[in-house]
Amino acid sequence: MYDTIIIGAGPAGLTAAIYLIRKKVNLVLLTQQVGGQILDGPLIENYPGFGKITGPEWVAKVRAQTEKLGVEIKEGAEVKKINKIDNGPPAGPLRREASEAGFEVEGNGWEKIQGKTILIASGKRARKLNVPGEEELLGKGISTCVTCDGPLFKEKTVAVIGGGNSAISAALELEKYVEKVYILNLGETLVGEEVRIDQLKKSNKVEIVASAKTTEIIGDKLVEHLKYKDLKSNEEKEIAVSGIFVEIGWEPSTNYLEGFVELSPQKEIKIDTNNQTNVEGVFAAGDATTVKYKQAVIACGEGAKAALATWDYLSKLT
Amino acid sequence: MYDTIIIGAGPAGLTAAIYLIRKKVNLVLLTQQVGGQILDGPLIENYPGFGKITGPEWVAKVRAQTEKLGVEIKEGAEVKKINKIDNGPPAGPLRREASEAGFEVEGNGWEKIQGKTILIASGKRARKLNVPGEEELLGKGISTCVTCDGPLFKEKTVAVIGGGNSAISAALELEKYVEKVYILNLGETLVGEEVRIDQLKKSNKVEIVASAKTTEIIGDKLVEHLKYKDLKSNEEKEIAVSGIFVEIGWEPSTNYLEGFVELSPQKEIKIDTNNQTNVEGVFAAGDATTVKYKQAVIACGEGAKAALATWDYLSKLT
Repeated sequence: MYDTIIIGAGPAGLTAAIYLIRKKVNLVLLTQQVGGQILDGPLIENYPGFGKITGPEWVAKVRAQTEKLGVEIKEGAEVKKINKIDNGPPAGPLRREASEAGFEVEGNGWEKIQGKTILIASGKRARKLNVPGEEELLGKGISTCVTCDGPLFKEKTVAVIGGGNSAISAALELEKYVEKVYILNLGETLVGEEVRIDQLKKSNKVEIVASAKTTEIIGDKLVEHLKYKDLKSNEEKEIAVSGIFVEIGWEPSTNYLEGFVELSPQKEIKIDTNNQTNVEGVFAAGDATTVKYKQAVIACGEGAKAALATWDYLSKLT
Repeated sequence: MYDTIIIGAGPAGLTAAIYLIRKKVNLVLLTQQVGGQILDGPLIENYPGFGKITGPEWVAKVRAQTEKLGVEIKEGAEVKKINKIDNGPPAGPLRREASEAGFEVEGNGWEKIQGKTILIASGKRARKLNVPGEEELLGKGISTCVTCDGPLFKEKTVAVIGGGNSAISAALELEKYVEKVYILNLGETLVGEEVRIDQLKKSNKVEIVASAKTTEIIGDKLVEHLKYKDLKSNEEKEIAVSGIFVEIGWEPSTNYLEGFVELSPQKEIKIDTNNQTNVEGVFAAGDATTVKYKQAVIACGEGAKAALATWDYLSKLT
């Protein structure tokens, strides 16, 4: 049985692993992909210590640091379920003697894994449109990462779907190399920093389509068209695009936790100031939690806090 | 009037400044010394992004990053007092219109400074032994952070000075990799969790020296010996050690805040999960606060959170 199973290897999970392995905790890090969402970061300018660093560069550095310390990383590991197990004396007043109590993690691609504690750092992911064609054409013209995929659409026509800050950033970045960018906004006006909205309006490559609800994405092997409903006229309209960037926000990656730990109405993991969830022995950190602001350095700090809380908990078990 | 006055330029204050200046907040950073306590860190191995970096190197990088963004730093500035001021309409329901309300900071070496918000990040300092050799050998074998520096003493002999929970934790962690740990306790018995004291007593690497008053630390370039007085026999004794962990507690640098914001019995600033103190418009981050774990990356994360909370507050003022 591991001392700790860490789920997720973004900034929070990696930092937690660094802290725990240095305390000789027997741990495993399960993740679908090392790095997580920060991989989409084109240029990070607010991480203390690096004036400018790209997301992938940051991940490469921290991954190397983690592996050098001897952390066992199981990549490509999707967690499906966590169960509480207890082979020892009952929990409660006798907990200190219940060294066999813990958790069992089930998923795809490995045997069940057992741990005395769980540290959840599974982050958040881009929200989906849930329209026909989206799943089939993801990665075939549909993207959630301008930095990764934007350059593939040089001199092509693309659409950004969304009306907030991330849609605005995406469009501003794309208009540097594409021929035309449509912004399909469900609302009537874009919501974000005025300076940047002004920049968009000045660009002759950008066309803002307000009150537009995307209804279908069409393409044979690659994206060819996009259908939307004009919410004012109620008309169905179609535009020809080669690329579609979905920028409609994020959702925490916590589906597998339903019924296991307490989640907020937004499906974020509820934690106290010391990163304890409502289940004893289960800690959480980073973008998957109720901590309000989602930033790499904040996730790192939270990962360290959760690791130290896990360590305190482990050191009380016999 | 500044939008924000940041007090303290350790990891929390510097990170807060980076976040706020990038949002074009008009701010000043007041500090006695840029860097704070992390300057005492000989080698940092748990800050994500740097496998190994010294405290002073980290500070130099982050200071440069902060200054390049245009942050105004007033170094050598000791804050003596903060007063609430209000030249506008009354606070409360009319707060949004009270753009002239704010705070006035008094101290040594400058005129009074006014700000709409205050972000406190004045940190803490390790309680000192006040013995000969301590100041000279700090960072040269003397440490105040096992989590940071413990692994540097693999297979060496070290001493932990103290008799409470932090001394116990330090010794338990150290005995995993060092050859021998002396615990020099001023009192007759250790005061802490019984389970953990038992663990210590069971370890053949740990030797508890009771009624021992450390009197001198000796070393040429690095720590070599430690002298103590046996308070029972009144004899002077000496032991050879490579590392000394001073674990006699910390004190937050919050004296100047008495009567201004709510402090805990340990004199730490009480904050909620979004770094708000009990005074509207006053935020706090880092080691001076009630956040339990004191680590550089945690202070950075907290500094970013406090900055974003300050920004949210400022953006609601007219």
